[in-house]
Amino acid sequence: MNTQVEMSNMENFFNPSAVVVIGASNADFNLGATICKILKEDIAYPGQVFAVNRGGEAVHGAQGFKSLRDIEDPVDLAVIITPAAVVPGFVRDCGEKGIRNIVIESSGFSEQGDVGQRLQAEINESARHHRMRIIGPNCLGILDNHNRFCCLYGANQLVRKTMKKPGTVSYVIQSGGVGGLVVERLMEDLLGVNKMVCIGNKSDVDESDFIDYFDTDNTKVIGLYLENVQHGNKLMAAARRTKKPILAFKSGRSEAGSAAAMSHTAGMANNDAVFEGACRQAGIIRLQSAEELHSLPKMFTEMPLLPGKRIAVFTNSGAFGSIGADLLAETDLVMAGFSGETREKLSRLPGVFNAENPVDIGPALPQIYLQIYDILLSDNNVDGLLHIVGMWRDYVADVMSELTELCRRHRKPAALFSFNAMARVQAARADKNLPLFSTLEEAVRALVVSHQQFRYLNKKETVS
Amino acid sequence: MNTQVEMSNMENFFNPSAVVVIGASNADFNLGATICKILKEDIAYPGQVFAVNRGGEAVHGAQGFKSLRDIEDPVDLAVIITPAAVVPGFVRDCGEKGIRNIVIESSGFSEQGDVGQRLQAEINESARHHRMRIIGPNCLGILDNHNRFCCLYGANQLVRKTMKKPGTVSYVIQSGGVGGLVVERLMEDLLGVNKMVCIGNKSDVDESDFIDYFDTDNTKVIGLYLENVQHGNKLMAAARRTKKPILAFKSGRSEAGSAAAMSHTAGMANNDAVFEGACRQAGIIRLQSAEELHSLPKMFTEMPLLPGKRIAVFTNSGAFGSIGADLLAETDLVMAGFSGETREKLSRLPGVFNAENPVDIGPALPQIYLQIYDILLSDNNVDGLLHIVGMWRDYVADVMSELTELCRRHRKPAALFSFNAMARVQAARADKNLPLFSTLEEAVRALVVSHQQFRYLNKKETVS
Repeated sequence: MNTQVEMSNMENFFNPSAVVVIGASNADFNLGATICKILKEDIAYPGQVFAVNRGGEAVHGAQGFKSLRDIEDPVDLAVIITPAAVVPGFVRDCGEKGIRNIVIESSGFSEQGDVGQRLQAEINESARHHRMRIIGPNCLGILDNHNRFCCLYGANQLVRKTMKKPGTVSYVIQSGGVGGLVVERLMEDLLGVNKMVCIGNKSDVDESDFIDYFDTDNTKVIGLYLENVQHGNKLMAAARRTKKPILAFKSGRSEAGSAAAMSHTAGMANNDAVFEGACRQAGIIRLQSAEELHSLPKMFTEMPLLPGKRIAVFTNSGAFGSIGADLLAETDLVMAGFSGETREKLSRLPGVFNAENPVDIGPALPQIYLQIYDILLSDNNVDGLLHIVGMWRDYVADVMSELTELCRRHRKPAALFSFNAMARVQAARADKNLPLFSTLEEAVRALVVSHQQFRYLNKKETVS
Repeated sequence: MNTQVEMSNMENFFNPSAVVVIGASNADFNLGATICKILKEDIAYPGQVFAVNRGGEAVHGAQGFKSLRDIEDPVDLAVIITPAAVVPGFVRDCGEKGIRNIVIESSGFSEQGDVGQRLQAEINESARHHRMRIIGPNCLGILDNHNRFCCLYGANQLVRKTMKKPGTVSYVIQSGGVGGLVVERLMEDLLGVNKMVCIGNKSDVDESDFIDYFDTDNTKVIGLYLENVQHGNKLMAAARRTKKPILAFKSGRSEAGSAAAMSHTAGMANNDAVFEGACRQAGIIRLQSAEELHSLPKMFTEMPLLPGKRIAVFTNSGAFGSIGADLLAETDLVMAGFSGETREKLSRLPGVFNAENPVDIGPALPQIYLQIYDILLSDNNVDGLLHIVGMWRDYVADVMSELTELCRRHRKPAALFSFNAMARVQAARADKNLPLFSTLEEAVRALVVSHQQFRYLNKKETVS
């Protein structure tokens, strides 16, 4: 594989200088029109936009043509959103015009039986012949918040909002619905989306190609939602090439679930145990829910990796100390046993109810919090913190802010949970840039996956 | 047990006509003062409030006395929030004045070793002698949103807010922190709190007494957070007396967790398997997280109980149909197999991608949604719905509103999840009174616990 050529080819999906939307018109409910609108009106995409439709009419300011052949300017990306039957013809036209990157958003291919499969075969033939790279078919397309490019249809309002908060997490998503969930909920969380690709049937470009691409760009964490894996070895190889954390959620674990996935994006059911094994070997962190796609990345961007299993629990609610200990007992992490020095220092501090793990404090001043953090993070028996503190005073958010600094200095992470209203949690994320988790279960999971990534990278370095 | 006497005694905890706060003063950081303030200034409690302190000074408008003996009016509830050492003396004074209901919020009793246990023994002696009922010690007290009574210390802001939304869920909580989580997050959810009691060390009145009491009042769902169970048979008997759903979360499942709980509220560690068995036999629904205390009750107040195991999944995202099927496969519920008639009717509707279970639709008009609901709920092979629909248009919230009506008519429940931002979900709850769950996992759990309650009540009726 000539990686350089491949990568420049991939770049055109995210940062094209001219794009044509084939099938965009001014008819009612035309989906292609929503893409012209987003590019020309909603997000100020800096490149050229053309529309191809029967009448050759302009669409939301995108210059209109009856045929690709009539466009004189060079075009580096085509988005096709027409009935399935005419897609193969347009793909050939693209090849002849020299367009090497195509997103086919139309459905009606392998996910819909024999006729669809024949259409798919025709497209594959053209793609091979012209060395084109294709995303889709049966997909929602691409969002790039940094390059300000987007060809997701019908998502204009959402995209306008999310572009205001470009981030460092990039996603490959085999479903529009899951993509919507991730983007909407991430906006209420700490981070923003960098790039998101909805790959649908993935007849050509798949999750592995994007893992390779995201390894080269400004992405910090890679999220995957998969319904099937067609090329397991390719996925494992790509995953092994990157040191960036890859978080993957896969549906179709059960028989009924995989039957449903089959009718959705046409993939063969995968044996779940095989996928599980592949993830373990290639250092892919397998997620337990779609929610984890947006909730967990902040642990990687805001905190050092968890270098060991021994966790100190710190709380201002005795109950949550106990619940936190219960949750840790269900993982491969353990409650840290403090050094004598730590216990002695803690017991001398006012407001400390329990100088053992979990450390439980009553109403206390900010400097007491900071002293405790320093004591705990300095203890060689402690690898990281589970921090369960209700924001009963405004300064609690400030001390958590200082805690994140301390964590970076000590190279030990803290997973933060506050037992407050979500509105308050969201405000603390926005105002103080705090990686606060929404539930205690999420915070514990964050420690687990952080240590999983640490172990994987460590082993990798030892081996290589 | 003379239940009538006991109940009228319990009523004084929630609806006293005169209350004295022993230990409330105008000193800095005085906790009793926050209780006087809440009653006199924040929530317009209609009864009389007195304060007892060394100087006999008035506190936030509560008339002050040096001693209980100086209060001439009758008092039906005393709240004691003083250092532990002087609590037994005040309890005796209460007995002599004829006060039969006491809340001891002070800590420093059985949870803190020998000295504390001796103080506790003195209190128990007075309580027996004067037939007093005691909540606590080491507790946060009582909140009653309907009677507008509250003696939680330091929670003024929160209580002012929650009183605006009195509800039908009543809680017994062995921790202030968990109580805070439940109250704050419930405010962002559909329901409101009816009553909440934080019972601390529960030296006298315990969760079982409140289950009996909540069985007689306007409570619809009972929530428990427990760190220990001291009287297992009493709890089982009380649970068996009510038909109201009881949702219980218990910490101290693990060794480390139960050690932490011990230092918090002084209870002996319980064998987790024993508690599990007791719950099963007495129809107590055991929760998997503290979050479920606020997320699950709406399934009981807004929907009929799930009468069988066969679930129809309905979605406008193929991916979530598959994920929903996966989640159901992990429960004792099953994917319904539709009747031929249902499949035929569904396949005739425009916009239906999949007429099998999960039913997957594309962009469709409201009347199509309603037709599908009617078809699915009318199928004798379907006991309930898992409804996973993104609110891509405003009318989706309206059709969900009509769905809840249809559910009541068909006596089959739907668990609703929308893959949108939480702000949007919260708005739909508030504006349309929709019992929307925050995650798909919660929605599936709601179906599971709904059927659990159905089976329990059914068995009960068969036996009796």
